[in-house]
Amino acid sequence: MQLKKILPLAALTVVLPSLGLAQEAEAVVDAVIDPAPDALEAIAALNTEMVFILNSLLFLVGGFLVFFMAAGFCMLETGLVRSKNATMQATKNVALFSLAGIAYFIVGFNLMYPGDWVIEGWLGGISPTELEPVGVAPEDVDDIEYASIGSDFIFQLMFCAATASIVSGAVAERVKLWPFLAFVVVLTGIIYPIQASWSWGEGFLDEMGFSDFAGSSIVHAAGGWAALAGVLVIGARYGKYGKDGRVTVMPGSNLPLATLGMFILWLGWFGFNGGSQLAMGTISDVADVSRIFANTNIAASGGAVAALILSTLLYKKPDLTMVLNGALAGLVSITAEPLTPSLGAAMMIGAVGGVIVVFAVPFLDKLKIDDVVGAIPVHLFAGLWGTMAVPLTNSDASFGTQFVGMALIGAFMFTASLVVWLILKVVMGVRVSDEDQVTGLDKTDMGMEAYPEFSN
Amino acid sequence: MQLKKILPLAALTVVLPSLGLAQEAEAVVDAVIDPAPDALEAIAALNTEMVFILNSLLFLVGGFLVFFMAAGFCMLETGLVRSKNATMQATKNVALFSLAGIAYFIVGFNLMYPGDWVIEGWLGGISPTELEPVGVAPEDVDDIEYASIGSDFIFQLMFCAATASIVSGAVAERVKLWPFLAFVVVLTGIIYPIQASWSWGEGFLDEMGFSDFAGSSIVHAAGGWAALAGVLVIGARYGKYGKDGRVTVMPGSNLPLATLGMFILWLGWFGFNGGSQLAMGTISDVADVSRIFANTNIAASGGAVAALILSTLLYKKPDLTMVLNGALAGLVSITAEPLTPSLGAAMMIGAVGGVIVVFAVPFLDKLKIDDVVGAIPVHLFAGLWGTMAVPLTNSDASFGTQFVGMALIGAFMFTASLVVWLILKVVMGVRVSDEDQVTGLDKTDMGMEAYPEFSN
Amino acid sequence: MQLKKILPLAALTVVLPSLGLAQEAEAVVDAVIDPAPDALEAIAALNTEMVFILNSLLFLVGGFLVFFMAAGFCMLETGLVRSKNATMQATKNVALFSLAGIAYFIVGFNLMYPGDWVIEGWLGGISPTELEPVGVAPEDVDDIEYASIGSDFIFQLMFCAATASIVSGAVAERVKLWPFLAFVVVLTGIIYPIQASWSWGEGFLDEMGFSDFAGSSIVHAAGGWAALAGVLVIGARYGKYGKDGRVTVMPGSNLPLATLGMFILWLGWFGFNGGSQLAMGTISDVADVSRIFANTNIAASGGAVAALILSTLLYKKPDLTMVLNGALAGLVSITAEPLTPSLGAAMMIGAVGGVIVVFAVPFLDKLKIDDVVGAIPVHLFAGLWGTMAVPLTNSDASFGTQFVGMALIGAFMFTASLVVWLILKVVMGVRVSDEDQVTGLDKTDMGMEAYPEFSN
Repeated sequence: MQLKKILPLAALTVVLPSLGLAQEAEAVVDAVIDPAPDALEAIAALNTEMVFILNSLLFLVGGFLVFFMAAGFCMLETGLVRSKNATMQATKNVALFSLAGIAYFIVGFNLMYPGDWVIEGWLGGISPTELEPVGVAPEDVDDIEYASIGSDFIFQLMFCAATASIVSGAVAERVKLWPFLAFVVVLTGIIYPIQASWSWGEGFLDEMGFSDFAGSSIVHAAGGWAALAGVLVIGARYGKYGKDGRVTVMPGSNLPLATLGMFILWLGWFGFNGGSQLAMGTISDVADVSRIFANTNIAASGGAVAALILSTLLYKKPDLTMVLNGALAGLVSITAEPLTPSLGAAMMIGAVGGVIVVFAVPFLDKLKIDDVVGAIPVHLFAGLWGTMAVPLTNSDASFGTQFVGMALIGAFMFTASLVVWLILKVVMGVRVSDEDQVTGLDKTDMGMEAYPEFSN
Repeated sequence: MQLKKILPLAALTVVLPSLGLAQEAEAVVDAVIDPAPDALEAIAALNTEMVFILNSLLFLVGGFLVFFMAAGFCMLETGLVRSKNATMQATKNVALFSLAGIAYFIVGFNLMYPGDWVIEGWLGGISPTELEPVGVAPEDVDDIEYASIGSDFIFQLMFCAATASIVSGAVAERVKLWPFLAFVVVLTGIIYPIQASWSWGEGFLDEMGFSDFAGSSIVHAAGGWAALAGVLVIGARYGKYGKDGRVTVMPGSNLPLATLGMFILWLGWFGFNGGSQLAMGTISDVADVSRIFANTNIAASGGAVAALILSTLLYKKPDLTMVLNGALAGLVSITAEPLTPSLGAAMMIGAVGGVIVVFAVPFLDKLKIDDVVGAIPVHLFAGLWGTMAVPLTNSDASFGTQFVGMALIGAFMFTASLVVWLILKVVMGVRVSDEDQVTGLDKTDMGMEAYPEFSN
Repeated sequence: MQLKKILPLAALTVVLPSLGLAQEAEAVVDAVIDPAPDALEAIAALNTEMVFILNSLLFLVGGFLVFFMAAGFCMLETGLVRSKNATMQATKNVALFSLAGIAYFIVGFNLMYPGDWVIEGWLGGISPTELEPVGVAPEDVDDIEYASIGSDFIFQLMFCAATASIVSGAVAERVKLWPFLAFVVVLTGIIYPIQASWSWGEGFLDEMGFSDFAGSSIVHAAGGWAALAGVLVIGARYGKYGKDGRVTVMPGSNLPLATLGMFILWLGWFGFNGGSQLAMGTISDVADVSRIFANTNIAASGGAVAALILSTLLYKKPDLTMVLNGALAGLVSITAEPLTPSLGAAMMIGAVGGVIVVFAVPFLDKLKIDDVVGAIPVHLFAGLWGTMAVPLTNSDASFGTQFVGMALIGAFMFTASLVVWLILKVVMGVRVSDEDQVTGLDKTDMGMEAYPEFSN
């Protein structure tokens, strides 16, 4: 700026008020007294933008990681069924994930995050998901302090779909395809979203102080309850439990594939728990996500090692399927509170999950509850344990509230699922005939073998 | 600030210069005119830096996701061939990806993004890729408003390699290894880059307004055309089509592995389509990437469910390979425009892709076009559909232009591929002998069985 | 600000207050001295925050990618053993990763990054990892200019676990489970962390200028040395080497699974090498990460293509296991310096790795060193090559220092591992009996077959 401009400008600030332009003069003086209002506003805007981007990115990365859990469940279950049912199991897993995506879009997401539907009445919540418009401007996003709707939708969808994946493993090898898929649609479109809204949709469990960080109860026990209802309605596989009380072992056909499935699930759990921090735009949040990663990992380690040691002590030989389920139970156990535990506490919480699995699997067999892949021990029992373990490390949670939440979720999920399974049993029939079970569902119901050249 | 303060301040700016404090007066006035020049510049620089980092990060994450599609193609194809050709199929997939990486580096990338080569002549585009130097300073990066060259290179390479992966499935079980790999080198080094430059290298299709967001035509149909040319030149597998018109079913040897391949491809598609937003540094961009994630996912769901239902209606029993290919066709269909559709529209676009697959697979068999894994229905037919579907939701696109682009890409890809396949046929021979096909390529050409202990 | 400006300004600040304008004087002076102090501070704080978040994010993404390498190793090894040992191999891989996570938490991490333990004495380093507290404030993080402890821990843990995964492949099919796991605990809790601290814990190799960017020596050769010690102590598989010098080929039971494992490892390597940039918060850093992605990819391509061509030239037919190991050797080779090479140089460095593998595999057989999956050629030999190749493209490194570092790491890793293996041999026995090897470890030691319906 040249000197010759200074005098007129100085004069200007004298002249302006005398001309009745007080506001303009004020603005000039404001700039002197508060030298960078625009800058501070610009910094705040940039900060808001970065937080929004990083939160959305957390959901997108978490979303694709949890998506991959669909493949993990599929490989785990397909590896643990007999080869004569492997094509069916793969088909169910692809179909359930696809249908979950549609049901959650058409009704589930808005039912779970109802916004104003409580006021507008239940039907207000029955609407398909709408995303923010293409190229949305910052001032038009739904919640500038959170994340994009699309990223939230994709992340939450994956949790909903996981609930259905849990069911498919338990009822494998004898449930009919179409009734199963019908159950999946109701579960993912209606039952799960209603239940999840209690805690995550600002519902009454949230208000009560129920604490389930990433869903030990809301997702895993919930899926386990739905699975248990299914197993009870459908019954055990033909030949599994003899009249004399003998339990026939029906070994999985492809354990390396099941192992791969477990590893994929473990991988996905970094997104499952880490993404549930719901924010990554501050130092505090990213450090918390990091804690969650570390705790999630060591809980899986604890569960696997506990199951390895305990199964060896009990049965003389280590049991791979116990180790796999032990790791998964460790993951389920830490899911209700992956943030507050120390690494040592997380390891112990996971280890208890592994112990639960080793005892629960034969326990269910004694009750003649035929859970093909161990989904009920892993997701239901370890999920309950994880929910009750929250107050051990999180002083904001109480055992009483945790118990109430756990019980209400269980009562609703089990009852609603039981009703649907019973209706399906009456309307369509849910169980493949004993003869067809002997032949294998791939031949009778699919017409396509999983390994046409291998099986004896 | 109150008015009473204005006059003295105004007087101040008069007094200072008269006291010989001209410089100080200048500084004061600078602060009035432009209250925080350094701060605003620093904010702009930080913003630029963050956008650059986030864009590059999008390419890196998208890059590793699309990389993993190489594994997805490999598992899908290896699972869908007979076990006697599985080692060969795995070898082809590893080798084609490796060679694509080299060919794209040596010539493809610079041919596709030619910079000044149009002016300097064609040979100007024939040069290996050079990355930005180690520890590049902000002022030295190639395009400060975009992303690092290395991140762009790795992302674009994966698209190029996908084109070759599409071909390998169609021509499986009878193409010779080395001629196939020779074709891959020409395809990924020259044919694909030239064609892709028309749209993505600021070429004439881009100028015409042809719209193919992530490559329904540019990658998928392009790969499909190259595959079709190969299938026609190489011919069907020995024994596939009888003289009496009978089609022999040659079932895939490992459907769980094929299912895994499909899931991996679905996972990779989040990077494929999401990364094609090419930017993640603003609220608008990250919200668009989120839309793309959600639309991509539901299109796959639509394709899988459509194929599941339709195959059951047509053949009484659901067909897993149709469901897998239906999901993939849904993904291909949405790839040309994953941003503008609503979730419902994306689901329908994907569902049409699934329908196309169910009808196209037997249609090709009637024409005695032997496509082992269904690559032509999935990538070519659904790719064409996706390209033509763009104007349904994107008002900037027109059916006419889409058709012209689609046709020109098809004509070039098919013709160029056909010429190369024919040359290879004459020079090296491209087809494994009937005897060796009966024995299986793993024994005759590899000397190594995929499952030496399993196959009967 | 120069002195000549101070006096007039000082005068000004005397004059103004005397006019009753004390506040205004203060504001004017503030604006002159530092026109936007709050804004600049806020920008710096935001920049620091973003760098911290992006660095931590790099570790988290790198962490889950390298985590997945555990699955890659597991699939590669399980696919390359005979089916009668596949359950055991999967069990070992799950267990070793789980135990590594615990051992590294209890002692490894703090031993490797000892902080003050050199001063406080060795025992000061023997302590479990503690993360930053929940919701840590920016002023309380351990290193505001780096990343969160949790993200660093999870990233470094994965490297430590990789070392153990390398060992498990080499000693497969005849090592006893529990002695192997005992070795893993010592390796990951003590041996590896001590060695790694020399370079990455600001130890003496770092001070010497030894350069091993992501661990060709520190991780890969280190794991290879530990594997070699194990192979020597345990001996070859029963029947592998005849008295007449004949080598019995024991083909892998599931090559598609091994191929999947290779692809997963390749995927994970983007995190392994890319994350080792240790920073992503500046344009320079993200461009470097991008270079590393591109170089890592093309080194794998170079290794695979070199092994493909060379194995075909030597044995007439291409060898898939050589191609897989060639790609891996390319990756190991580039790991010591994935940043400074050009793409062409990276390709060549990887190609040499592929050549090494093709010659080293039969060479080891001549020495009757029975390495089931080729871990020693891939990780040890290519790791040594990669370490020595650093000075070819990085002028800060010298061949002498590289050799010294490589040799000291090798001497320590081999000796320490040998001692542990020998102790285990004496105390527990490390080798499965010949009879049990013939039967297969899955039956004798696990009581569970990997593919109970397939194997002949």
